[in-house]
Amino acid sequence: MSVGQPIECNAAVAYAPNKPLTIEKIIVEAPKVDEIRVKVLKSALCHTDAFTLSGEDNEWPASDFKPVILGHEAVGVIESVGPEVTDLSIGDHVIMLYTAECGECKFCIDNRTNLCIKVRSTQGKGVMPDGTTRFKNLKGEPIYHFMGCSAFSEYTVVSKHSAVKINKEFNLEQAALLGCGVATGFGAAGYKGIGAAKKGNQITKGSSVAVFGLGAVGCSVLEGAKAAGAKKIIAIDTNDNKEAWAKEFGATDFVNPLKLKEGENIVSKLVSMSDDGFGIDFTYDCTGNVNVMNDALMASARGTGISTVIGVAPAGAQISVRPFYLIVGRTWTGIAYGNIKGKSEMTELIQASDSGDLSLDKYVTHRREFTDINTAFEDLHSGDCLRTVFNY
Amino acid sequence: MSVGQPIECNAAVAYAPNKPLTIEKIIVEAPKVDEIRVKVLKSALCHTDAFTLSGEDNEWPASDFKPVILGHEAVGVIESVGPEVTDLSIGDHVIMLYTAECGECKFCIDNRTNLCIKVRSTQGKGVMPDGTTRFKNLKGEPIYHFMGCSAFSEYTVVSKHSAVKINKEFNLEQAALLGCGVATGFGAAGYKGIGAAKKGNQITKGSSVAVFGLGAVGCSVLEGAKAAGAKKIIAIDTNDNKEAWAKEFGATDFVNPLKLKEGENIVSKLVSMSDDGFGIDFTYDCTGNVNVMNDALMASARGTGISTVIGVAPAGAQISVRPFYLIVGRTWTGIAYGNIKGKSEMTELIQASDSGDLSLDKYVTHRREFTDINTAFEDLHSGDCLRTVFNY
Repeated sequence: MSVGQPIECNAAVAYAPNKPLTIEKIIVEAPKVDEIRVKVLKSALCHTDAFTLSGEDNEWPASDFKPVILGHEAVGVIESVGPEVTDLSIGDHVIMLYTAECGECKFCIDNRTNLCIKVRSTQGKGVMPDGTTRFKNLKGEPIYHFMGCSAFSEYTVVSKHSAVKINKEFNLEQAALLGCGVATGFGAAGYKGIGAAKKGNQITKGSSVAVFGLGAVGCSVLEGAKAAGAKKIIAIDTNDNKEAWAKEFGATDFVNPLKLKEGENIVSKLVSMSDDGFGIDFTYDCTGNVNVMNDALMASARGTGISTVIGVAPAGAQISVRPFYLIVGRTWTGIAYGNIKGKSEMTELIQASDSGDLSLDKYVTHRREFTDINTAFEDLHSGDCLRTVFNY
Repeated sequence: MSVGQPIECNAAVAYAPNKPLTIEKIIVEAPKVDEIRVKVLKSALCHTDAFTLSGEDNEWPASDFKPVILGHEAVGVIESVGPEVTDLSIGDHVIMLYTAECGECKFCIDNRTNLCIKVRSTQGKGVMPDGTTRFKNLKGEPIYHFMGCSAFSEYTVVSKHSAVKINKEFNLEQAALLGCGVATGFGAAGYKGIGAAKKGNQITKGSSVAVFGLGAVGCSVLEGAKAAGAKKIIAIDTNDNKEAWAKEFGATDFVNPLKLKEGENIVSKLVSMSDDGFGIDFTYDCTGNVNVMNDALMASARGTGISTVIGVAPAGAQISVRPFYLIVGRTWTGIAYGNIKGKSEMTELIQASDSGDLSLDKYVTHRREFTDINTAFEDLHSGDCLRTVFNY
């Protein structure tokens, strides 16, 4: 019986930026107050994991890179619960939430945002709310948490605010995907009142949409646009291989910005593709490239266009445009986890999957054993991968 | 009888950037189709007039500065009407609208925006919709229009879409102010469903507000914030003399960014002044300085803050921030003429004046004869002037 005891298990530890993860035995302490220990069942690799591993993440910079267990897109079964955990029980299936929902803080009470602050400050430092870590290696050295999840371990400890219970019948691979990328894009489209819709930024019927960057996030924005009844859905990527699957996810048009005609740029191209020549109603950056973010704003519609930044930029990079683009009525905003409140809105995401509006199965392009995780980073960078899902 | 005939009258002509205007006799042609000729009764000097005179305006650059009659904040009486003008008549009092409202274009039909395109492209070029000018000097040289108004002439010709009829009883000085600055700020606050409220960006009861730059625009944002029931209204200016009048217009606090404590900057100062330490709900740039625009965004509230650019920046200047500020839920937008639809919403502005929510009289800090206009530019730059109103 492991409850209340440390567990020894396999984990993938990032000891240094840009180096392969080390698969090794670690010790996972028992959960403390308000915490749960989870046996990870499925997880997926997201660009944010790779981004932090690159050392370019402001919160985990190469210059001060501490050993960390990455992974934040995951589902598991609760192995044990700490004191004062009442709404979750041993045996529950839970999706991990890198954007927690405590239900009580200013941000949880405000319907317009999902940026719960209950565990945020310690989460950014790689520790649990009490300031300590639940992981150590067999030498006794501390290993830090990541995004409040650290799913690349057979067992992990998370805050009770960082996990939402789901039906045990729900497909585990697909559940894992709802922990980040797919929910992020689909939420950003503002599907049926959830996500961005809580701020009034939902894609509207008959509108035009442009999505830059066709990873899992971008493709799920396409699905959200299709579900919303957008008329023109333009997918943009520098990789022509993405065209076919963009169209499978709902794109009506595909543009490769490296293959424009002489005299065109991506902004003028997109504006020319809008019905009235005034720009695109909704644009989304899913690349993390600040130049693309600028283009996405400039291609949005005069007067009413909304441009949403979803991709995470490297440390220090800045967006930059002439303010005239705003003065004439454009809106520039951004979104984390699709503005989804992880506990309150997971039911709607699962219903979207059940109804076929969100085709979660299509995002699983690769499957690997968890111990083969380093190969999955190569998959991710190869460009023909949406998600690699790991078996544990 | 002047109807149908050219009129010779006094005008103030800008022949070159950064030079005094030339007061001289000019010829004002009769109005053509869809145009009206207006005897200007009162006008006011706005920073935008000074901005264009400086040669820094993209649309009227120093490198290609053509003779122009400035002035766009004005009221007059219709002297004659051209063919096909049915909703305006000789003798009507009209406020000139640099943001026209034709009622028929895509932008007029869309309730979210006020950027009517009916006369926009020719307006930017300084000509009437048929591509020609109605002004010439006594040498016969063409003089161009400005913002569709050119109020710094005893008579001017404007499009029928660029003028709104008002009650003849309404105070003329105060009517002139509704043509630009005061309507811009008050509309940006989203007073009672007009202006920015049409996009959902109205200041809410109990909220916090920060306004950078306390000219007429900034002060009218303060009044809008007060009328909306904002709890904390922070006025920001580098001129301490503005504190007293900011408070008269509704500010609860005043901050001079040049007089902060060691280690503080304006962003950290404002964030520290917010109730919960997460930033200000609504921030407004009324300076045209891109660094201030950046600060205004960064000082706005995590998750839900809305920062609105109102000031017009010099040619080439760019706003620039880390996209992280958007990712965590801030909204950056901008507004022209307070998103007021000049014909549809003028009644509400006049009612706001009648009710005392908008104290138009307080903005008239100086009065001059029209022919003394060059002195008024000095007033404007002196810093203790909100508006100089001209008698004709």
